[in-house]
Amino acid sequence: MPSDCIFCRVIEGSLPSSVVYEDEKAVAFMDIMPINPGHVLVVPRKHFGELSELDEDTGAHLFRIAMRVEKALRVSGLQCEGTNLLQNNGREAWQEVMHVHLHVIPRFKGDGVKVQFGQQQAARAHLDQWAEKIKARL
Amino acid sequence: MPSDCIFCRVIEGSLPSSVVYEDEKAVAFMDIMPINPGHVLVVPRKHFGELSELDEDTGAHLFRIAMRVEKALRVSGLQCEGTNLLQNNGREAWQEVMHVHLHVIPRFKGDGVKVQFGQQQAARAHLDQWAEKIKARL
Repeated sequence: MPSDCIFCRVIEGSLPSSVVYEDEKAVAFMDIMPINPGHVLVVPRKHFGELSELDEDTGAHLFRIAMRVEKALRVSGLQCEGTNLLQNNGREAWQEVMHVHLHVIPRFKGDGVKVQFGQQQAARAHLDQWAEKIKARL
Repeated sequence: MPSDCIFCRVIEGSLPSSVVYEDEKAVAFMDIMPINPGHVLVVPRKHFGELSELDEDTGAHLFRIAMRVEKALRVSGLQCEGTNLLQNNGREAWQEVMHVHLHVIPRFKGDGVKVQFGQQQAARAHLDQWAEKIKARL
């Protein structure tokens, strides 16, 4: 456990947290910097930096918990109209705490959360090329 | 299968696709409107609208595949510096195709993908209140 990891400190109890769920492998707690009210983080107890370092069983377990949290959010009285599950890897991809975490974010009409990108339809030839590169590594 | 679901049509083969992986429960293919080159969607073969309709085993299976795709992207030669896994539920949360799907998005330095929101630190009392509401439904 890196001593400067704030999620490790939350898990060991040396930083305050509002926990919604915990078991031997994972902990789910409220994000202290919520994008919206009800924003939850699901994290492995053990320290892993990015998703590619995590074993698949633990990853699948985190996702199961996120699914339960997502369902709970829908009927929690927070009255969200949608949800985003988001898992970021690397500083370039908005990862701020280098301990794997899966965001479960309630969404509300008019909440002002926006994403900007230059999306356009790709040519089939490019899609096929990318698919070949990925398949070769799967 | 709703006849107007484009992902059902991709899965049955009546729309073209660039598939990277498939098994009896899931298919992964290139997003035709990629946020970045190498953007993959992981979807269940069977039609489910939103995540809360999906059984946990299938959800966990989708996440396992997404983890493999994420790892493959890192070494695929696309040279991404990070990744986002994103799963949207509901129109208010940017879901455009109403067939559950999990995005695996390679990220590149200076790719111009931005997210905007009015994030600020929440009071512990609020975090605890939200946690109680969610715990009560878990």
